[in-house]
Amino acid sequence: MTTLSREIAARLADAGHRVAEDIEVAMNIAIVDAAGHLLHFSRAHDALLGCIDLAQRKAKTSLLFHLPTATLGRISRPDGPIYGIEWSNGGLVSFGGGLPITDSDGRVIGAVGVSGGTADQDVLVADACTAAL
Amino acid sequence: MTTLSREIAARLADAGHRVAEDIEVAMNIAIVDAAGHLLHFSRAHDALLGCIDLAQRKAKTSLLFHLPTATLGRISRPDGPIYGIEWSNGGLVSFGGGLPITDSDGRVIGAVGVSGGTADQDVLVADACTAAL
Amino acid sequence: MTTLSREIAARLADAGHRVAEDIEVAMNIAIVDAAGHLLHFSRAHDALLGCIDLAQRKAKTSLLFHLPTATLGRISRPDGPIYGIEWSNGGLVSFGGGLPITDSDGRVIGAVGVSGGTADQDVLVADACTAAL
Amino acid sequence: MTTLSREIAARLADAGHRVAEDIEVAMNIAIVDAAGHLLHFSRAHDALLGCIDLAQRKAKTSLLFHLPTATLGRISRPDGPIYGIEWSNGGLVSFGGGLPITDSDGRVIGAVGVSGGTADQDVLVADACTAAL
Repeated sequence: MTTLSREIAARLADAGHRVAEDIEVAMNIAIVDAAGHLLHFSRAHDALLGCIDLAQRKAKTSLLFHLPTATLGRISRPDGPIYGIEWSNGGLVSFGGGLPITDSDGRVIGAVGVSGGTADQDVLVADACTAAL
Repeated sequence: MTTLSREIAARLADAGHRVAEDIEVAMNIAIVDAAGHLLHFSRAHDALLGCIDLAQRKAKTSLLFHLPTATLGRISRPDGPIYGIEWSNGGLVSFGGGLPITDSDGRVIGAVGVSGGTADQDVLVADACTAAL
Repeated sequence: MTTLSREIAARLADAGHRVAEDIEVAMNIAIVDAAGHLLHFSRAHDALLGCIDLAQRKAKTSLLFHLPTATLGRISRPDGPIYGIEWSNGGLVSFGGGLPITDSDGRVIGAVGVSGGTADQDVLVADACTAAL
Repeated sequence: MTTLSREIAARLADAGHRVAEDIEVAMNIAIVDAAGHLLHFSRAHDALLGCIDLAQRKAKTSLLFHLPTATLGRISRPDGPIYGIEWSNGGLVSFGGGLPITDSDGRVIGAVGVSGGTADQDVLVADACTAAL
């Protein structure tokens, strides 16, 4: 099982920030370890302040349930099977931008949370982070 | 970039309170700076006590996302793209009454939050505050 | 019994800010009503950010016990009769800068909290606020 | 006035982690901007989990009062002038490891918080961070 180190986390985040710069959106990027504890956070200049909390919360949400936050969102709406789950665990995020990080054996070794743009932009950048592993 | 001073904040709030008196609603008005920190708060006699917190929270919400709180509300409903965002950042407000304050260059230099009446009345007073800049 | 209005509160705070400018310290000034609810807050440019919370907390502390916060501090130290009271009520402040506001009949009609300088400077400014009633 | 960027923050933190590796202590390093908002966080492998929160809280404390946390600690003890201040602002840290970051004009442009070792070790690493500016 791969373990995320400080150096790997910084590399994943940097890959995300490069894509964010390409699409010209200032992003907040958070990475948590396999236990959900914060390992890395970095904020681009002028990234929205409300997204500091959202980035960390997306990473935590994704790790806690081993799911992309967008997937959690689809099943947590008023007509979904786990409606209201956002109230648990101190507050979850149920829209895109949080992704589990899996190693080559398919084990979840952490999660990334990206916030600063639209949900679609956040997902694009989160994909770039996990692809850099 | 203009910086909101104590004197400017008081002037914006006073402009709002005058409109509030015209429509005979006692208001709470909060103004935060560009970083979301409280700069000014004033409460008219008999303004609803539950609205002290709401006014400050509207100002903070609006600053954190550089959006009117009413706009945030429209996109955070169950069928919207950022459903559930209110649980982030210690609790946001997703109905009208919070507005960003922008300088002549279009930069967000703070935000105002108004609470005490209906959402429409709160927005009317918040508009009066930002118009006084 | 006098009731603190929005206008009176602004006048008291302005009197405090003038003294603060004389001694060249940027202050945060909070005024609560007889029930301890926030009535007024104003922050001078460059006042320490940590003192936004302290000013409000001093005003609340002073109102809750009808005492100057410095007096509460003297009796709440480890060898005092109410050691540990700061843990109550969501967190109190036990050093100078909070003062009850009393009307001409000696009734407590609110309280002021000042924070931004040394405790002595904060008390000087709080005195100026209450003297302006 | 210099503004801390994502890249500068990463450079300061890396300088701290190098010293931490020299003394063989795994550290958590947090950097906040001039308004106290999180800009960077990084955790070395095996750093104590309880220190994730402490590092961020030290950075925030130091920024809020423009003081090293060790200095705040000296004046907030039972016989000091601001005894009990730790209960304000959502909880402060009053021992070493938090330092303001000042630019060449002496202006506070952010703060660093280090946690993972003894207070002396944390201060040593925080010094390395600020020296790298």
